Amino acid sequence: MSTVIDILPNHSSALKSAMHYALLAGGKRTRPLLVYLMGKTVTVDDADLLTISMAIECIHAYSLVHDDLPAMDDDDLRRGKPTCHKAFDEATAILAGDALQSLAFTLLADHPMSEMGNAHRIKLVSILAKAAGYLGMCGGQAIDLESTGHSISLAELTQLHQLKTGALLCACAEMVTAVAPELTPQQANAFVDYARLIGLIFQIQDDILDVEGHSDIIGKPQGSDLAQGKNTFPALLGLQSAKEELAKLHKQALQALASLPYNTEALSAFTDFVVKRDH
Amino acid sequence: MSTVIDILPNHSSALKSAMHYALLAGGKRTRPLLVYLMGKTVTVDDADLLTISMAIECIHAYSLVHDDLPAMDDDDLRRGKPTCHKAFDEATAILAGDALQSLAFTLLADHPMSEMGNAHRIKLVSILAKAAGYLGMCGGQAIDLESTGHSISLAELTQLHQLKTGALLCACAEMVTAVAPELTPQQANAFVDYARLIGLIFQIQDDILDVEGHSDIIGKPQGSDLAQGKNTFPALLGLQSAKEELAKLHKQALQALASLPYNTEALSAFTDFVVKRDH
Repeated sequence: MSTVIDILPNHSSALKSAMHYALLAGGKRTRPLLVYLMGKTVTVDDADLLTISMAIECIHAYSLVHDDLPAMDDDDLRRGKPTCHKAFDEATAILAGDALQSLAFTLLADHPMSEMGNAHRIKLVSILAKAAGYLGMCGGQAIDLESTGHSISLAELTQLHQLKTGALLCACAEMVTAVAPELTPQQANAFVDYARLIGLIFQIQDDILDVEGHSDIIGKPQGSDLAQGKNTFPALLGLQSAKEELAKLHKQALQALASLPYNTEALSAFTDFVVKRDH
Repeated sequence: MSTVIDILPNHSSALKSAMHYALLAGGKRTRPLLVYLMGKTVTVDDADLLTISMAIECIHAYSLVHDDLPAMDDDDLRRGKPTCHKAFDEATAILAGDALQSLAFTLLADHPMSEMGNAHRIKLVSILAKAAGYLGMCGGQAIDLESTGHSISLAELTQLHQLKTGALLCACAEMVTAVAPELTPQQANAFVDYARLIGLIFQIQDDILDVEGHSDIIGKPQGSDLAQGKNTFPALLGLQSAKEELAKLHKQALQALASLPYNTEALSAFTDFVVKRDH
């Protein structure tokens, strides 16, 4: 991943460094991991998985840089390190996010892929652009900002997260299945359903960690969502009901995997990891 | 153009309105006009020209929204109207820019095109993503921010503008010629050279207008570039030499057109218009 930044010319060293920082300053690499686990389950070519993973991670990294900006969530720390606009400056952080979004589409257009991947590049662009934009991530972030400070319904909170984080996770599944033509539509749908459930599980667990986690492990101040007036599942449902919802979604995700005629042990282990993570 | 925004669902009406505002609040539509004039010169299909124009205009509109932000150029007025972050708020303006960039790639992937356009969609994505990102517009804006307040060489100023505004104008030519397979590589290059010259002409004229123009016609305070410590061609060369450079580039642009075996009268008229514009 470092290579695609390193090979850029140095006409703006600050912007290049900020893009590098945003992409490579740690992180759990949840989306690339999900892409690889799904891809390996159905034997997608490695080159295709690499290109898809890098493109998704560029979009994810850019969204974190912009979400952390003073005008948005105004976070100073991300993964225990200064956020991009703190390590550089606001203008550079805005541009780094913008350039990372462009880079995602450059990768889908130009980075090496298999014959199968090459044949489906425009489908991948279509999936990722939709998941990143108004119909996905940006739309979700806008709802999040609008609803912060006043409470919303469970249905609204679920939609918020399905757009804000779910859309990109679903795009992981949609992109992998787009280059796996041996899948039936039903099987492809099972992967997308699974990814959608992972998105919700991830968010509910995130909300629970904001209540119960330790600041030094989760990499941001514990209770920061509540302090900012964010709507969370525990705030809406109560902590105990949020945990029950998490257990229900966990079970549904494992059922989606069980419906597939593949060895899904690695994906099951990943699911358990997402449910039980402490950061 | 309004339609692609209007058909979006209303889950975030503020974001949707801000995207609409950014795309449709006036503007000279220089890039779509250039796309149509070049496309009509070589008889490219209307559907392809429309899709290319809309995608380019989404990138251009997003870049204006982000460039105007307080952390960037901090402009309150654009085309005589409140800038997007003034009409809405900063967070919504950042997201509107982000979502417009995604929308550009959605259009290239999904908006109707001819058989020829369909066959070259991924090439169009490649061209536009490169022109928008670090190797183009974002890189140029970063150089602009870094160099504001201290003077740079003519070569550096030229590179700045070739990236900041030239890359997207060149992309207009590259995208049109990508769906016009009857062109020889030399002819395609002549169109790209022409677009590159138009970019420089446009910028030098912009700089001259900042010195000589009227605030109420140019839609921003006269002298604002100088006040912000921006590097400009008149500041570097003197006003008279900047005008001579403009005349030289004007001649070169007309020569590039004359080398083509097409009726380039409309493009010549467009060139004259860009040189003589007063806003």
